[in-house]
Amino acid sequence: MGRLWKEIRHTPILWLLVLAPLVLVVHVAWPDAHTLLFLLSVLAIVPLATLLSHATEAVAAKTGDTVGSLLNATLGNLTELIIALAALRLGQYTLVKASLAGAIVSNTLFMLGASFLLGGLKFHVQDYNQASARLQTSLLFLAAIALIVPSAMAGADSVAAAPDFMRQLSLGLAILLILSYGLGLFFSLKTHREIFSSAEHAASDGEDVWPLNVALATLAGVTVMVALVSEIFVESVQQAAETLGMTPAFVGFIVVALVGAAAEMASAFSGARKNRLDLSVGIALGSAAQIALFVAPVLVLISYVIGPTPMDLQFWPGAVIMVLVATMTAFIVTNSGRATWFVGVLMLMVYLIFAMTLYLLPPKLT
Amino acid sequence: MGRLWKEIRHTPILWLLVLAPLVLVVHVAWPDAHTLLFLLSVLAIVPLATLLSHATEAVAAKTGDTVGSLLNATLGNLTELIIALAALRLGQYTLVKASLAGAIVSNTLFMLGASFLLGGLKFHVQDYNQASARLQTSLLFLAAIALIVPSAMAGADSVAAAPDFMRQLSLGLAILLILSYGLGLFFSLKTHREIFSSAEHAASDGEDVWPLNVALATLAGVTVMVALVSEIFVESVQQAAETLGMTPAFVGFIVVALVGAAAEMASAFSGARKNRLDLSVGIALGSAAQIALFVAPVLVLISYVIGPTPMDLQFWPGAVIMVLVATMTAFIVTNSGRATWFVGVLMLMVYLIFAMTLYLLPPKLT
Amino acid sequence: MGRLWKEIRHTPILWLLVLAPLVLVVHVAWPDAHTLLFLLSVLAIVPLATLLSHATEAVAAKTGDTVGSLLNATLGNLTELIIALAALRLGQYTLVKASLAGAIVSNTLFMLGASFLLGGLKFHVQDYNQASARLQTSLLFLAAIALIVPSAMAGADSVAAAPDFMRQLSLGLAILLILSYGLGLFFSLKTHREIFSSAEHAASDGEDVWPLNVALATLAGVTVMVALVSEIFVESVQQAAETLGMTPAFVGFIVVALVGAAAEMASAFSGARKNRLDLSVGIALGSAAQIALFVAPVLVLISYVIGPTPMDLQFWPGAVIMVLVATMTAFIVTNSGRATWFVGVLMLMVYLIFAMTLYLLPPKLT
Repeated sequence: MGRLWKEIRHTPILWLLVLAPLVLVVHVAWPDAHTLLFLLSVLAIVPLATLLSHATEAVAAKTGDTVGSLLNATLGNLTELIIALAALRLGQYTLVKASLAGAIVSNTLFMLGASFLLGGLKFHVQDYNQASARLQTSLLFLAAIALIVPSAMAGADSVAAAPDFMRQLSLGLAILLILSYGLGLFFSLKTHREIFSSAEHAASDGEDVWPLNVALATLAGVTVMVALVSEIFVESVQQAAETLGMTPAFVGFIVVALVGAAAEMASAFSGARKNRLDLSVGIALGSAAQIALFVAPVLVLISYVIGPTPMDLQFWPGAVIMVLVATMTAFIVTNSGRATWFVGVLMLMVYLIFAMTLYLLPPKLT
Repeated sequence: MGRLWKEIRHTPILWLLVLAPLVLVVHVAWPDAHTLLFLLSVLAIVPLATLLSHATEAVAAKTGDTVGSLLNATLGNLTELIIALAALRLGQYTLVKASLAGAIVSNTLFMLGASFLLGGLKFHVQDYNQASARLQTSLLFLAAIALIVPSAMAGADSVAAAPDFMRQLSLGLAILLILSYGLGLFFSLKTHREIFSSAEHAASDGEDVWPLNVALATLAGVTVMVALVSEIFVESVQQAAETLGMTPAFVGFIVVALVGAAAEMASAFSGARKNRLDLSVGIALGSAAQIALFVAPVLVLISYVIGPTPMDLQFWPGAVIMVLVATMTAFIVTNSGRATWFVGVLMLMVYLIFAMTLYLLPPKLT
Repeated sequence: MGRLWKEIRHTPILWLLVLAPLVLVVHVAWPDAHTLLFLLSVLAIVPLATLLSHATEAVAAKTGDTVGSLLNATLGNLTELIIALAALRLGQYTLVKASLAGAIVSNTLFMLGASFLLGGLKFHVQDYNQASARLQTSLLFLAAIALIVPSAMAGADSVAAAPDFMRQLSLGLAILLILSYGLGLFFSLKTHREIFSSAEHAASDGEDVWPLNVALATLAGVTVMVALVSEIFVESVQQAAETLGMTPAFVGFIVVALVGAAAEMASAFSGARKNRLDLSVGIALGSAAQIALFVAPVLVLISYVIGPTPMDLQFWPGAVIMVLVATMTAFIVTNSGRATWFVGVLMLMVYLIFAMTLYLLPPKLT
């Protein structure tokens, strides 16, 4: 606990941690203050995410970047999963599917782009493990097309009218995706773990690294807090969005996806600023692949239990285009194994253009 | 002949060679036993393909991997061509076009994926000639988009209604593609043959290599047998498929494409298991490019002679998407010049998802 | 001036310079001879472009390839911009948008392909700066999708009906693109100029290099001539095209784009034949990116001032497909950092197939 206080004194943003209990109090006292709850919960997730990032890095420092990356990706997607589960219970499938597609796009364009920009402002050129990045973008590309191509084909051939077909297809797809995810864990943690290790084993600063048990306890506690605040966030987001003039597709694709990934972003950005871009690339791409191979199919399966009706995996055409373009972009920009600030700027610009298009041209979701 | 017997004794699957004459006998005796003929002919092609692979490797061992790869690709696509010609005579253009698109997708996703998996189960990481693979995927990508983009544009702009336009376009396209193919042969066999040579001139096992004349004779004889059995296969496949609940698009895209490529697959897999992944990549990509640049346009031209009406090259939108995604995948996974089992698994999974989608959502072909 | 005459004596094509004043005379004497003016102005631009290329190379020899490439791209796109402005004034937005999309496709497929072919006929394999080419294709890819994806999404979701949405989106898009262009100049000229320098500082021939002031004066004078002739070209092209049986989309996409880029092509081809493929790749990709990030948005903004109505940035679906495929092709073929003649042939073939498709299947532009 002493270390935690020391950390908070040195990181001003962590004073915002006080917002987390405040959200809970406001939620009990004024459950209908949706816009306030929405803004408070977004603000509360930021310091929680920062603290989570510190704890994760402390663990990563003890265990190597591979396990650290995996930990980050898993915990970050836990948030994503919890938010989606809340929406699933309420049958808001548009929000869920938009947040799935949005998470893949945010991780590749926004998280990777901002990492490149933040790192590039400090370092002239940042090199990272090219072989590892190429393998990870291959995996992400394959995972993304596995998730998205059935929608593209159904859309292109205009045969999606029959809902039974789409439901059957989604179920089969979910089972194949989860199977692949399991084999992927076996691959990255067992047979080929060396590929996922970072190129630069930047000697950790030596001082100020938390002991493993403190780090793990903080990790667990903060994860629970993130889950609680996320719960309130998703309850308030829908009505707050309407007040602020946003559509469900925009909210899911941009707002939920960004807030859900806040914890991973803090870690990825911190890695970029410490010239450990391998960590950033690993978090961003690994997390996006995990959304496609794990979170999406799990939500389909769970929808049979807790949803009003089974959820399918049919995405609207604009989402298909954005996911394909975003994963191709991830491949193209990481292909060289080096990053500069301007590539980050262009990726953020493409993300901004996607957001603007989605805000102005909401998809027809019949 | 002595060597052939020796080979058969050492390779149990070759006992199935007895099925080839059996198919011919059954075809004469019970010409209407479609489902039986379908299953028998599929089974009969497997050992023929295996023997073909042995013979091809024997020739390749004498002539170098370049000529070996070319030989494999040509003979494998001869099968494909013969099957397509039979379908062409009957005017089954949906089957023909599905088998063309399916052959490109099968070669890139299934053949390459299975090669990676089979090789990866035996070797931890397999490196292959990166420069050569990149050149070959560039060529494949260009060949595939040349074949497929006119369909995409016609589909996107909804002007394909006028059949005359599409016929003219297909004829022009066919001529340009064949011209490119001719220049490509000049390139790969004459001006730049060194690029296509394998990275590892794995010293052939030294023992048990057939003399060139035996190998060539076997190659020729087995090719004829494959052609005969393929003929029966295509006659039976349509009715057998209906019995088994499959659509023409699925049969063409998956069944005909896989059976048509059985010979090349045997060679590609054998190369992968001998850590000569250059051979596998060369066969898979070269054969897919040859389908686009040679087999497809030749079929268009021949359709003017033997078909009931001229065949055009308009593919349904789902086929366009699958071909584009598959060739991009080939580029992305071969970009690093190294293979591992999990990349193979993911490629096979994407292929399986394509097959599942096609089975559940057959294209509207009006 | 003495040097200029010497240059003309040694370069027969420059005798065609006499066509430039001839075009002006014919335009005054017979303003309605559209087809004649069209042909004369196309022919007149060729020697002007050649001279421009000589002058640009003379400047490039003094200033390094980076500034030379930028100079080439800027001046080449000045032509493009002037042609588009003339069309803008007349409200011919189909022509303008087709020429924008066509310029990106021509630069990547035709200019790069012909450079590879011309260089490959002289040199067996040409290597160029791989890292620089990868960065430039990343930038081009990001620029192109920023320009084109909103159209894809609007088209896919069929919500483009509301013109206000598209106009708002285009205005926001234009501002973001210009902002990115400014940051890109800061990047390529200030913070990371070393990345854009050529791999081979081919010692210029030593003799026959113009002094800087002569080169700059020639550059300025010839640019004005190109502008004057282009003006006449665009006035005549529309009616001449109708006479020759071409649609506005074909004229804009192929004819205007090729003529507008004639100057850059001369430089790119000359670089390729001197084994300075870095120069060719830099001109082709840099110019295409500049079309997307600078010329297109500037035209949108200027349309508010000089056009009959504001121009939006919605491209027809076929244009979206061609731009995406062309930029992906640029990435894939430049990925290896080496060029051979056959890759050039295939790129030219794809360009030819695009042109043929566009000629036979003009887009529905409602």
